[in-house]
Amino acid sequence: MANPTAAMLVIGDEILSGRTRDANMHHLAGQLTEAGIDLKEVRVVSDDRDAIIAATRALSKAYTHVFTSGGIGPTHDDITADCIAAAFDAPIDIRDDARALLQAHYDRQGTTLNAARLRMARIPDGAALIDNPVSVAPGFRIENVYVMAGVPSVFQAMVASVLPTLKGGAPLVSTSTRIERGEGDIAGPLTDLAARFSDLSFGSYPYIKNGVFGSNIVIRGADKSTVDTATRALIAVFADAVK
Amino acid sequence: MANPTAAMLVIGDEILSGRTRDANMHHLAGQLTEAGIDLKEVRVVSDDRDAIIAATRALSKAYTHVFTSGGIGPTHDDITADCIAAAFDAPIDIRDDARALLQAHYDRQGTTLNAARLRMARIPDGAALIDNPVSVAPGFRIENVYVMAGVPSVFQAMVASVLPTLKGGAPLVSTSTRIERGEGDIAGPLTDLAARFSDLSFGSYPYIKNGVFGSNIVIRGADKSTVDTATRALIAVFADAVK
Repeated sequence: MANPTAAMLVIGDEILSGRTRDANMHHLAGQLTEAGIDLKEVRVVSDDRDAIIAATRALSKAYTHVFTSGGIGPTHDDITADCIAAAFDAPIDIRDDARALLQAHYDRQGTTLNAARLRMARIPDGAALIDNPVSVAPGFRIENVYVMAGVPSVFQAMVASVLPTLKGGAPLVSTSTRIERGEGDIAGPLTDLAARFSDLSFGSYPYIKNGVFGSNIVIRGADKSTVDTATRALIAVFADAVK
Repeated sequence: MANPTAAMLVIGDEILSGRTRDANMHHLAGQLTEAGIDLKEVRVVSDDRDAIIAATRALSKAYTHVFTSGGIGPTHDDITADCIAAAFDAPIDIRDDARALLQAHYDRQGTTLNAARLRMARIPDGAALIDNPVSVAPGFRIENVYVMAGVPSVFQAMVASVLPTLKGGAPLVSTSTRIERGEGDIAGPLTDLAARFSDLSFGSYPYIKNGVFGSNIVIRGADKSTVDTATRALIAVFADAVK
């Protein structure tokens, strides 16, 4: 049976302007692979209502799960929650359960729950809250879309809250072999191997280091012993160039 | 007049599996911002023919320019050139100009231009070659789509080849002010400033460092003196918290 599929939607002008380098994509990708869920697509869109709504609808239809990051804070440019609600035609307002979480948190801190902070209690009707052990303001799930924060430490905490609730598939086993030889030399034997081990996937990820060409060959599959056999066959071909 | 728009299409299973952390998006985003071209969307798709074709068509229609990275090497999983050709219903085969570049390069190196390396001379009919000063195998432009390598040093060299040929808009001037105060305290005054300076955009990018909450406030606009005035107004409000 095929693994569940996933997409990620990153919301943030700061990524698209080059100001910030996204860290959440790489984190989520690794976590999903470990859980046996296949991340198939990532989209990064700006803080633009129409763009967020269109991407949410498209990804929600196409994949088992959708994970969003960014745009759920208290400032005027945090429009994600309202856009996700609109994507599902769900009403949205300040919700009592989310407000209670924030109220308790700010009471403990002796901070006022002002109008801006209250924006973080805007949750669509019917959505389930996602726990935020770092800074309390919750994420939420509506339909198959998990709406999470953009700050990496909070995003990671929310992913950790969500992942155990998802049904994963068979995690793939993989090996990575570094071959210091141009891809043009590797390609022929690699094609032969891919034909011989048709249950496995073979990826070639070239690099150039200090002017020397090489490639990391990643072999992936569900069965460890088949992956190991194929890896040994690869190493046998390029014995002198394996680093 | 609005700036030209752009999208990026990253092709690569290695990003989606979490094996590799993408570096090209951040590089391109910064370069386009400097050139006055607005990067509006990024998509990351796997090495899947249908996914690449569909994304290429959608992005090519929606934006002024589209930049792709990845999948143009010599191995069996390098399918980008053929997919881009298919997206535009253009015939594709080994092209003489690209073959001549590769032949001269490998002759100089004393390396054989074998069948795998020849795959890198597959260029769609009518496409213009993109210079690759690092490893010679060219990228290409077809319609408004610039097809470039995934290896960061090669991608960056190709971007440098392409950018001077594009007409940019007005580059935005921006300031970034680090305020060590929770976003919930910043949000109110920031909304007021955004209303007062409606020609500018105000972004709030929160962080948590050593348990202390803060936010980088980025003010952007076409006119430097307006951006400076707004930045001074922001600093005046949060004088004791500007770090």
